Amino acid sequence: MLSKSQIKLIKSLAQKKFRAQHGLFTVEGIKGITEFLNSSFQLKELYTVQSIFEVSDDKVNLISDTELKRISQLKNPNTALAIFEIPKSKDVTSNQLILALDDVRDPGNLGTIIRLCDWFGIKDLVCSLSTVDCYNSKVVQATMGSLTRVNVSYVDLEDFISELDTTIFGTFMDGDTIYGSPLPQEGIIIMGNEANGISESIERLVTKRIAIPRFGTIKATESLNVATATAICLSEFKRELI
Amino acid sequence: MLSKSQIKLIKSLAQKKFRAQHGLFTVEGIKGITEFLNSSFQLKELYTVQSIFEVSDDKVNLISDTELKRISQLKNPNTALAIFEIPKSKDVTSNQLILALDDVRDPGNLGTIIRLCDWFGIKDLVCSLSTVDCYNSKVVQATMGSLTRVNVSYVDLEDFISELDTTIFGTFMDGDTIYGSPLPQEGIIIMGNEANGISESIERLVTKRIAIPRFGTIKATESLNVATATAICLSEFKRELI
Repeated sequence: MLSKSQIKLIKSLAQKKFRAQHGLFTVEGIKGITEFLNSSFQLKELYTVQSIFEVSDDKVNLISDTELKRISQLKNPNTALAIFEIPKSKDVTSNQLILALDDVRDPGNLGTIIRLCDWFGIKDLVCSLSTVDCYNSKVVQATMGSLTRVNVSYVDLEDFISELDTTIFGTFMDGDTIYGSPLPQEGIIIMGNEANGISESIERLVTKRIAIPRFGTIKATESLNVATATAICLSEFKRELI
Repeated sequence: MLSKSQIKLIKSLAQKKFRAQHGLFTVEGIKGITEFLNSSFQLKELYTVQSIFEVSDDKVNLISDTELKRISQLKNPNTALAIFEIPKSKDVTSNQLILALDDVRDPGNLGTIIRLCDWFGIKDLVCSLSTVDCYNSKVVQATMGSLTRVNVSYVDLEDFISELDTTIFGTFMDGDTIYGSPLPQEGIIIMGNEANGISESIERLVTKRIAIPRFGTIKATESLNVATATAICLSEFKRELI
């Protein structure tokens, strides 16, 4: 049976400040938990309604459906909830293509972008401190396991970029078309906030302004969603390798 | 003041069968409503807490915040809710690039894809009958007005494709890389269901199997989300025009 203090700890991990304080985050569902178990992430505790995971006994807590419902952040909880340790982020490998996010707020967007990094072989994702936490349960859910394979760092983005000696790509409506000239396999690509794009302090550091051209004839077309814009940019940088 | 029958009608439009029965759907928020007012869509009724729209008086209903909350499908209702007539879909222009969806279920994905069609100048989006309804309020919300500029048709996809005399592109994990050879500006591109991809009956009709190559070194990477895969495909077809 779950103790009150266990329930309190697990539920507190829904909030960023408690995740940071305890250095822990939650993963839900068989598929997601299995991905993290098969990675370098360290399991802290597993709460499950079925013994289906290969995990040392002292970390397994068999619980009832009602108990799972109590600790889950999902409407429809799926079999198990695991607590993992938040790892230290590794150093950024700066001689490769890096993706940077300047204040991306939507958990679904960040999850999709982490999945895209995984797909396109981008090892380092660098996020501004105001970008949504990658250990937010909605982000973890949306990454479909990709979070185990992408090194996500939170940094003062202005400081970080200032110290780089590489091309700083920024996406803007008035940039040069990304379809125009060969793109390098080195540099950093910055994607901006959902509503406001790249912030002014970061814009000043951009050395190459790029844009995804609009093909629709009507100018009213809204800008692209940041996750789909990222998909198109990464595809365009990586296609050179084929 | 809102009558009981008005409230009942508006709330019923959250369901597809009542939208179909009445030929009506709802749009919420100033920006979304303005986009539809400036399009060929016909306004039926407007319910608003402020007189800020240029609409003939007999269609405007000034309501209170409490009343708006009662008829809104949003957690945080935004100023107004409008009812528009569902238009007849126009004929599909088959000598251009068409996008087809085979059983896409997630409203957010459909909304993003309609926005992508708008951006990339795809005039016709053809959906299987099992694809989520484009007048679902979550879809309308996610399209950010693009629904006013893209012709969305719901058809028996197998029949529709069988009658086409053009290249039938299907996206599969084992297809030829989309980065490999020039892509035509004519044909139909089929994207499949979130979990199962393109269905067998539709797969049989595909004449050109294409794939977005994976660049990540680890094979475990999940397939791409259907909306991001659509973004990459449309970008790749359209870049030829630059």
